[in-house]
Amino acid sequence: MSLLVVGTVAFDAIETPFGKTDKIIGGAATYISLAASYFHKKINLVSVVGDDFPTESIAMMHKHHVNTAGLQIKKGEKSFFWSGRYHADMNSRDTLATELNVLANFDPIVPDEYKDCEFLMLGNLMPGVQQKVLSQLSKRPKLVVLDTMNFWMDAAWDELLKTLAMVDVLTINDSEARQLSGEYSLVKAAQKILDMGPKYLIIKKGEHGALLFNKEQVFFAPALPLEDVFDPTGAGDTFAGGFIGHIAATKDISFENMKRAIIFGSAMASFCVEKFGVEKLVGLTKDEVDERVQEFIDLVQFEIDLG
Amino acid sequence: MSLLVVGTVAFDAIETPFGKTDKIIGGAATYISLAASYFHKKINLVSVVGDDFPTESIAMMHKHHVNTAGLQIKKGEKSFFWSGRYHADMNSRDTLATELNVLANFDPIVPDEYKDCEFLMLGNLMPGVQQKVLSQLSKRPKLVVLDTMNFWMDAAWDELLKTLAMVDVLTINDSEARQLSGEYSLVKAAQKILDMGPKYLIIKKGEHGALLFNKEQVFFAPALPLEDVFDPTGAGDTFAGGFIGHIAATKDISFENMKRAIIFGSAMASFCVEKFGVEKLVGLTKDEVDERVQEFIDLVQFEIDLG
Repeated sequence: MSLLVVGTVAFDAIETPFGKTDKIIGGAATYISLAASYFHKKINLVSVVGDDFPTESIAMMHKHHVNTAGLQIKKGEKSFFWSGRYHADMNSRDTLATELNVLANFDPIVPDEYKDCEFLMLGNLMPGVQQKVLSQLSKRPKLVVLDTMNFWMDAAWDELLKTLAMVDVLTINDSEARQLSGEYSLVKAAQKILDMGPKYLIIKKGEHGALLFNKEQVFFAPALPLEDVFDPTGAGDTFAGGFIGHIAATKDISFENMKRAIIFGSAMASFCVEKFGVEKLVGLTKDEVDERVQEFIDLVQFEIDLG
Repeated sequence: MSLLVVGTVAFDAIETPFGKTDKIIGGAATYISLAASYFHKKINLVSVVGDDFPTESIAMMHKHHVNTAGLQIKKGEKSFFWSGRYHADMNSRDTLATELNVLANFDPIVPDEYKDCEFLMLGNLMPGVQQKVLSQLSKRPKLVVLDTMNFWMDAAWDELLKTLAMVDVLTINDSEARQLSGEYSLVKAAQKILDMGPKYLIIKKGEHGALLFNKEQVFFAPALPLEDVFDPTGAGDTFAGGFIGHIAATKDISFENMKRAIIFGSAMASFCVEKFGVEKLVGLTKDEVDERVQEFIDLVQFEIDLG
């Protein structure tokens, strides 16, 4: 039943047309773990922070069923920090600051108690670090999901390709899918990427939803139309967290169940963007999550009898 | 059972990254009528062409159940002509030529036999011309659908608002919804536009699908992910044609049936973009249409039991 989540735990400072934050907690693994916690109650985290990271935030993660035995806390060092400003359309942003700090020399150590994990979510990190996690496991997990980004396509192409060949599901956004494949058509891009190793590809299109491909099938889930997208930071990671959380909870890696997992991921992402940072992902009730999932059902379901 | 379609019947010359055409037939009412003909077998057309318009194209319309008694053929005049070039992403285009010709003084005349129409599709035209059609009917149709574009928001704002107040369903694209409402959020835009008169709003998002709003509900239909979009010309009109064709055939204007109509419209639009102009919309079989609709069902349907 174990789910291993690897990725950054960090500080962000965010500006959007709706306001700005001081340093708040963020990081891919934070969003992934919190979102997954609404579906799966045993989440093992591997990450690194400095001793500037608030103990109350770690306590908040514990409340969300996150085991932090694999969270390295580096004495006298600072946590990874990212700062960005979103443009008016919320689809593009400028990075104002990136301070790697503890991430610069991150050497992931998978605790023994995590090594037989059944489900592995590798959040966006240097591909070499993602591989190091895989190499420490005692057996191949039932499903390995990888998130990555355009930066590694520019900076670590060969390592990225090597990592891609080791995973089952890749999640990237539409422009990254185009860059990785050299194809503009997402259908063609998907077929090329599926030849690189992953058996499943999830293309995240932000406000335009997400596509799930395998070699034979395709599934589409919309994003929920919202009155306001307050802060898109972490939406993709939250989506991935809802996805892997549902998969780990059900232990079912069929295409049909991945479709459900994508709906749960989309529902969690729709919460994420309604407030700054992880604020909305803390302390949701099961009823709130179910109600949001029902909104997705109502949004896309129709009855057609082709006779 | 009657469906009245009003709009342009015209010539287009199109350049895409895949090739270019000489003058081929186009026009909103052409695409609408052809798409509708796969669902409804009695389509009454009101439009205008010059005597340069090919008689074989009119014969092709007759084969597609289009009554052309309301198609004015102006002796010694030329048909409306538009020429455009699509950019590599197919989402934007440059207009190379617009020759209004017969459209400059188009005075729509609704034949007596059309005047008791139950369903009216007003394709994109000067809002004043759209009103003139409404004023000639002997009774208010059961459903009036209006398509318009940003051009009239700039050039004929007051007339457009007056026309909007007279219709039931408005179809526009996402940037037009934003311009018409002054709201970036499509959810907020929809609520403002529904206050302008229409009871239903369909926002077309091209490759990102379409949204149907009324004051209480929202429905989303994706576009079919395609290997190649060959020529997007007419896709929005084809969508509208499939929509109104299904509504006219079923005589059911409930929200549930509009959802189905949007899926049929999306299916027809997915055919449209696969070839230049109306080429793909001529002579499809019922099996081909059903198969395409089934692809939409497979694309979005999932089972979630919230227990």
